[in-house]
Amino acid sequence: MFKTIEWKNNSVVMIDQRLLPSQEVYRIYTDFLDVAEAIRKMVVRGAPAIGVAAAMGIALGASDINAKDRRGFVKEFKKICKIMAATRPTAVNLFWAIERMKRVAKENPKLGVDELKQVLIQEAKKIHKEDIEINKQMGRYGSSLIKNKAAILTHCNAGALATAGYGTALGVIRAAVEQGKKIKVFADETRPFLQGSRLTAWELMKDGIDTTLITDNMAGYMMKKGLIDVVIVGADRIASNGDTANKIGSYSVAVLAKEHKIPFYVAAPISTIDLNIKHGDKIPIEERDTKEVTHIKDIAIAPAGIKVRNPAFDVTPNRLITAIITERGIARKSFEKSLKRMVKAGNIS
Amino acid sequence: MFKTIEWKNNSVVMIDQRLLPSQEVYRIYTDFLDVAEAIRKMVVRGAPAIGVAAAMGIALGASDINAKDRRGFVKEFKKICKIMAATRPTAVNLFWAIERMKRVAKENPKLGVDELKQVLIQEAKKIHKEDIEINKQMGRYGSSLIKNKAAILTHCNAGALATAGYGTALGVIRAAVEQGKKIKVFADETRPFLQGSRLTAWELMKDGIDTTLITDNMAGYMMKKGLIDVVIVGADRIASNGDTANKIGSYSVAVLAKEHKIPFYVAAPISTIDLNIKHGDKIPIEERDTKEVTHIKDIAIAPAGIKVRNPAFDVTPNRLITAIITERGIARKSFEKSLKRMVKAGNIS
Repeated sequence: MFKTIEWKNNSVVMIDQRLLPSQEVYRIYTDFLDVAEAIRKMVVRGAPAIGVAAAMGIALGASDINAKDRRGFVKEFKKICKIMAATRPTAVNLFWAIERMKRVAKENPKLGVDELKQVLIQEAKKIHKEDIEINKQMGRYGSSLIKNKAAILTHCNAGALATAGYGTALGVIRAAVEQGKKIKVFADETRPFLQGSRLTAWELMKDGIDTTLITDNMAGYMMKKGLIDVVIVGADRIASNGDTANKIGSYSVAVLAKEHKIPFYVAAPISTIDLNIKHGDKIPIEERDTKEVTHIKDIAIAPAGIKVRNPAFDVTPNRLITAIITERGIARKSFEKSLKRMVKAGNIS
Repeated sequence: MFKTIEWKNNSVVMIDQRLLPSQEVYRIYTDFLDVAEAIRKMVVRGAPAIGVAAAMGIALGASDINAKDRRGFVKEFKKICKIMAATRPTAVNLFWAIERMKRVAKENPKLGVDELKQVLIQEAKKIHKEDIEINKQMGRYGSSLIKNKAAILTHCNAGALATAGYGTALGVIRAAVEQGKKIKVFADETRPFLQGSRLTAWELMKDGIDTTLITDNMAGYMMKKGLIDVVIVGADRIASNGDTANKIGSYSVAVLAKEHKIPFYVAAPISTIDLNIKHGDKIPIEERDTKEVTHIKDIAIAPAGIKVRNPAFDVTPNRLITAIITERGIARKSFEKSLKRMVKAGNIS
């Protein structure tokens, strides 16, 4: 099995997701600036994986700080965190991971520079390990929602490649399959970055899960034909009212699911819930390079000079979401209450 | 200005739409079998343009028939029509054009072989010429629905490239622009064949019409942001109740338009209306080669061996269609009545 991201020999190793499925290339990062660039350029992507990468990037940067005392160290450490925070704006897991790394530094005021460096590395590795456990727990909860012989539509990649491993939305699918349920998956290709065709199709095929690739604009047709029973997607940030930012096109799928009376589930760790944001309109939406839309690798698929919009995410309002699956249980409406309870008090299921 | 299709020096000349926008290549066809193949392979596409190509292909094939008498000619002529009818199943304009060519042969029983060949060529050229006039008339009617400063979303290419010239949906946009209205167009890229990014963006840019390219899955986002006022699409076949087969993804756009209370207009010539078909479920939907989904030119964008669905069209039910714009006026609900009246009696506006 492939590894999405790993801390190895004091470096960060990541599979280059831009090259999948045609090439399986692992890149070794020894400079935190290159990790930041890898996040920006989507070598690694998916909210939980971005969180892990940011934590490891910070640990890497911290270990290279050349400071005699703690004060000098903290000054440089803050700079590193700031650079990491500027990579991508939407996935809140990035900021969550950065905050967690900062907290570790703060909560160990007596450690010397060298010891602190080690603690930060341990914390990044812990975030990585926890993420896999979280996904498996999410899978156990979520799979209770999936009937035998269900046909599941998923958008983008919320799989092992979007996390430290196992996946959020695809983790739920994996758990259902592990329970012996017969599952059929439809994967939207997810333009422009093609996470569905390049990543989801690839990782589900590797697991021998029955997967059919469609273009994004075929989802409505498949639903109308009665071929889809359930939709499950991941999330990049969930507001306190349940409004969910996820890969561009998720909102359209949610509207189609409503039209066809198909349940629409979001699977995401607690770290994706941002109680500081009241509703989805406040979630910053990243607009990416237009070349993602106009080119496939170096092939132009649009006339030169055409105006392009490329929002990388959209917001699905809470009314279109049937339930939100987390590692602490399944949140139902009203999400204001259930999400708050889940974040603050732990397990509610 | 480019020409989509033309009868020239006893051959059929077509712009190769597979190569746009990077190359503007005109192919010269002297064998009707190559015209049939060009329709199948989508060198030419768009329901009205397919109709013109079929008529010209038949005229070309007929002119090559080596028969001493009319009886021998008709036998070969029927074979040609049959081959042409087997190219693509959904666009009814193909069958309409073939029927029209057959009728010309039937209605001129006294003509000799050579004269009949000439009459068939004249008929094909007439269909071509009429199509442009029809589009302009459709534009005049349709533009009355478009307010100044409207932002229009269109899907696929229902433009000059989908017709003999001017276009159906894009004809309405062109007419509105010619009337001095300030129009902003959003073009869905329209996977998998990319008619939106490759063709619509290209031809609207050539006309200096303000066009913004988006991926199919961004339509919902743009509507939610209030950036779309109107949707206009073409059609490949309209059932007698108004259910409309059009490029895959049109149905999803129609559902999104309903969700956002945005009018959804279909622009198509009378020849696209199939009164023999009661409702959309009876329209045959072509399923095309999976390579259209898994590859962009020769670049694989999905893992080898992945299962793929590739329906080329979907059906938008009449309840989601605000009005149907034809060269004889604007049909409103109930479409059963308005379409029948339009087809049988002519102009109703």
